[in-house]
Amino acid sequence: MLHNKMNQAGDKKFILRLSKYKRVLQQFKALGMERVFSNNLGDAIDVTPTTVRKDFAELNIPGSKRGGYVIDEVLKRVNELLEQDKPKKLIVVGCGKIGTALLMYKGFEQDGLMAVAGFDIDPKKIDPNATIPIFPLEELKTFVKKNNIKVGIISVPAESASRVLDLMIEAGIRGVLNFAPVELKYTKRFIAKNDHTAGCIIHNMHISPELINLFFLVKKQEE
Amino acid sequence: MLHNKMNQAGDKKFILRLSKYKRVLQQFKALGMERVFSNNLGDAIDVTPTTVRKDFAELNIPGSKRGGYVIDEVLKRVNELLEQDKPKKLIVVGCGKIGTALLMYKGFEQDGLMAVAGFDIDPKKIDPNATIPIFPLEELKTFVKKNNIKVGIISVPAESASRVLDLMIEAGIRGVLNFAPVELKYTKRFIAKNDHTAGCIIHNMHISPELINLFFLVKKQEE
Repeated sequence: MLHNKMNQAGDKKFILRLSKYKRVLQQFKALGMERVFSNNLGDAIDVTPTTVRKDFAELNIPGSKRGGYVIDEVLKRVNELLEQDKPKKLIVVGCGKIGTALLMYKGFEQDGLMAVAGFDIDPKKIDPNATIPIFPLEELKTFVKKNNIKVGIISVPAESASRVLDLMIEAGIRGVLNFAPVELKYTKRFIAKNDHTAGCIIHNMHISPELINLFFLVKKQEE
Repeated sequence: MLHNKMNQAGDKKFILRLSKYKRVLQQFKALGMERVFSNNLGDAIDVTPTTVRKDFAELNIPGSKRGGYVIDEVLKRVNELLEQDKPKKLIVVGCGKIGTALLMYKGFEQDGLMAVAGFDIDPKKIDPNATIPIFPLEELKTFVKKNNIKVGIISVPAESASRVLDLMIEAGIRGVLNFAPVELKYTKRFIAKNDHTAGCIIHNMHISPELINLFFLVKKQEE
């Protein structure tokens, strides 16, 4: 049943929702709660209670309208599915302020993520002996192949982002979280050039657009 | 007509789309393009061409199926609406690695944003004489009121995020971009306590959930 869901179009959001449920449930648990209702959880992550109930049915988590769901049971099932016992290794390309902050980010560990290396073109930033080493960009391909890395963060200036994406895909990266202030998109030219049939999934983080949006919503609220 | 759109439920996304159009059009322009079609733009930001055409009709931007839209005209109209001539001042609460990176982020300027101050509880981080000063958290309220700041970034550890949000709302902040790894949500308790009727709009940035999601999508693609 889960497998069906995983193959549906809504799939991308499904896994994202699971991560969000997990965060919220950990917060609820820290507050001493043992049970949760679909409407609490829906409110917290901005989805309908029906979506929560469908997702949990998909995960075979038992629950009832009156009794709600046992938080520990949900967390156990979500963790199993997210396989958070195995650390998910990723790399960071571009070790400026934001890249370095992400490379050193302590929050990754609790989420089962592990930044294993950074890459940069600036010789001053290279430090192969640091706890989390920073290598020259030329070593990206070898490192990614040797360590079988599939996911990377882009945190380079806008003008280098597209070129860096090409290098990462060529090296074997299949999922990218982009912090550069440009919209990056996977295009088929990579497949033609390198015969990679798997493609690359790119998510863009919109820091400035999100802030601009906030300014507008606030202004409108005041009108 | 625009005013109607701004009051619709889809409104939040409308302004976000405008910022995204802007980014993409600047990239297209840098590549030498002068005209753009709704399907190019729709592909680039993952919306349907119909959405692009509706948005541009809303903005009274002339265009045709055959000729597309003149990029400069669209940019001019979007900039007018986003009022990017006036810098939008914001603060950053929590000056750890990610907070400092955002405080110093050079990309804000081109987007009409300006980080004017940081706040922290750690005396070692306080530096009122820096180019972008960092003040003790106790000074938040005075600063926000004096400078009429409405938007702020939260980049504190998960366990402090909710308390910091309370302080920011009490100070007068009405829009928050949250980088702490918790789901923050505006609740009405703030209204009851401080008689703020305006509310506060909170957007959560999901760095770890987005990465976890990528790992899953990549894995599924390989199966």
